[in-house]
Amino acid sequence: MKLNRMYSFLKADIDEIEKELEAAIESDSPVLQEASLHLLQAGGKRIRPIFVLLSAKFGQYDIHQVKNVAVALELIHTASLVHDDVIDDAEMRRGRQTIKSQWDNRIAMYTGDYIFARSLEYITRIDAPEAHQILSNTMVELCKGEIAQIQDKYRFNQNLRDYLLRIKRKTALLIAASCQVGAISSGAPTEVHKRLYRFGYNVGMSFQITDDILDLTSSEKVLGKPAGSDLLQGNITLPVLYAMEHKHLYNQIIKVNEQTTKEEMQQIISQMLETDVIERSHAISRMYLDKALKELSMLPNNRVKKTLKNIANFIGNRKY
Amino acid sequence: MKLNRMYSFLKADIDEIEKELEAAIESDSPVLQEASLHLLQAGGKRIRPIFVLLSAKFGQYDIHQVKNVAVALELIHTASLVHDDVIDDAEMRRGRQTIKSQWDNRIAMYTGDYIFARSLEYITRIDAPEAHQILSNTMVELCKGEIAQIQDKYRFNQNLRDYLLRIKRKTALLIAASCQVGAISSGAPTEVHKRLYRFGYNVGMSFQITDDILDLTSSEKVLGKPAGSDLLQGNITLPVLYAMEHKHLYNQIIKVNEQTTKEEMQQIISQMLETDVIERSHAISRMYLDKALKELSMLPNNRVKKTLKNIANFIGNRKY
Repeated sequence: MKLNRMYSFLKADIDEIEKELEAAIESDSPVLQEASLHLLQAGGKRIRPIFVLLSAKFGQYDIHQVKNVAVALELIHTASLVHDDVIDDAEMRRGRQTIKSQWDNRIAMYTGDYIFARSLEYITRIDAPEAHQILSNTMVELCKGEIAQIQDKYRFNQNLRDYLLRIKRKTALLIAASCQVGAISSGAPTEVHKRLYRFGYNVGMSFQITDDILDLTSSEKVLGKPAGSDLLQGNITLPVLYAMEHKHLYNQIIKVNEQTTKEEMQQIISQMLETDVIERSHAISRMYLDKALKELSMLPNNRVKKTLKNIANFIGNRKY
Repeated sequence: MKLNRMYSFLKADIDEIEKELEAAIESDSPVLQEASLHLLQAGGKRIRPIFVLLSAKFGQYDIHQVKNVAVALELIHTASLVHDDVIDDAEMRRGRQTIKSQWDNRIAMYTGDYIFARSLEYITRIDAPEAHQILSNTMVELCKGEIAQIQDKYRFNQNLRDYLLRIKRKTALLIAASCQVGAISSGAPTEVHKRLYRFGYNVGMSFQITDDILDLTSSEKVLGKPAGSDLLQGNITLPVLYAMEHKHLYNQIIKVNEQTTKEEMQQIISQMLETDVIERSHAISRMYLDKALKELSMLPNNRVKKTLKNIANFIGNRKY
């Protein structure tokens, strides 16, 4: 099943969020408006808003309240992508030129700041101090994850713990917060929103590991950027960590740097695919997915539980 | 009188804020901790926290409440300085190496993000939705000011309106917010906190114009960076706008670029000082200062009004 078929019953609300996202970044500064829209319109899966909406169904769902949470979360995510691209020296994102390649690094930095600031305007509208606290903590952790990612670049002697902490901070906590704050904004009980947090955390870990696998197993056409981009930029992902346990791969991987060509990278990837590293990575992703599904099974029954399960399964097993 | 003598009665509270600022940026990431502390310890005048504290005296002053506002405002300001330095390619700030020159641009960007995120944790603690709204709007405007500053660099055909809008967004609104949110956090009446906002706005405008004058009239030793740095980086300030009304200066100024030497800049500055541009700039600064003092005169009488007046006069007339 296609992802967006799973939550087609939310279509009207998602459309409203899309409209609000465009309104959110409206600016009297043409460059700011254009740069922000550029990334926003490139799409993305809107995973975070969808988790917000579905989680809110565990309380008194009110789209006017929950909309602010969904927009805030998607804006935080978008802003962090903009800053990521400055760091990664990325030329392409979501199949389009990045802001920094189309404008410049300075514009990209402030466009990110601007989108962050806009997200605060939406957070402000959420009438729940607990939600504010969770979101500000999440942003602090996100920044720590970003800094760690810079420091860990091309650092080939890192271990599994470094990797897991990094993706927790960079990805999982924001998805966890999407679920939790979605639930809080609709007044769901503490036990429920804490469980949704854990569900989101585990889904997020599985999601990121799958993403890191796809960077190696998928094609440039599907990814919108060359395969092996992560490693090329020095980001050591789970399959790469496993690959380095193989002597012949270790010797090649530690030589990767910014000058490594697409062809050389393709050679390394081909050899990786002959080993068990993808399978082992999938197993870890699967482990997190199972944890997520277990949390889900303990939530009160309602009509969205099945949807959350389908989405979790989808993003933990997806091929693109 | 020295600035810090004017509010010596606040010393205990300011010390507490200093301690809280250091605690705020504490991190288990050594580079983040070091980079943040680097700038924070370099000092600065702590103008924003001081305005927060003094404005809070118009309500039920409670240092435990108002501390969060003061720390949040100083952190927002600090974060924006870090990002400024990335943009300005500045090597020195407050007499120290900038974060980007001591580490690199990427670390500087995320250190700024981190300090911003930390500020949110403090904003979250302020129990007043109105305050949250003001602060998020202020941050949006701040970003617009930053973007405008980039776009206006070396754009010699800009006018007074461009300049005033830019310094409003970049400086005045944050000082206005310091005053207003300080007052809101202590439960001061609406009329009072709105007036304090206008006071802060006008003081902020005067403050920034004075700053822009000092960049030309002060020495490298006092400034902690070479005189004329603004113009060298393409920032067209009020005295420069006035100078361009003089044909011989116009012809030299429009040739300024990143390659202009210290000596060439000194030559331009010397000729500027022979004209009326500094005097005219002071007159505008004075006009804003007078507006600020007028707002102040209409506030309820209390023991800090005199202090605010002294500080306003000081920062509008300061020589360093």
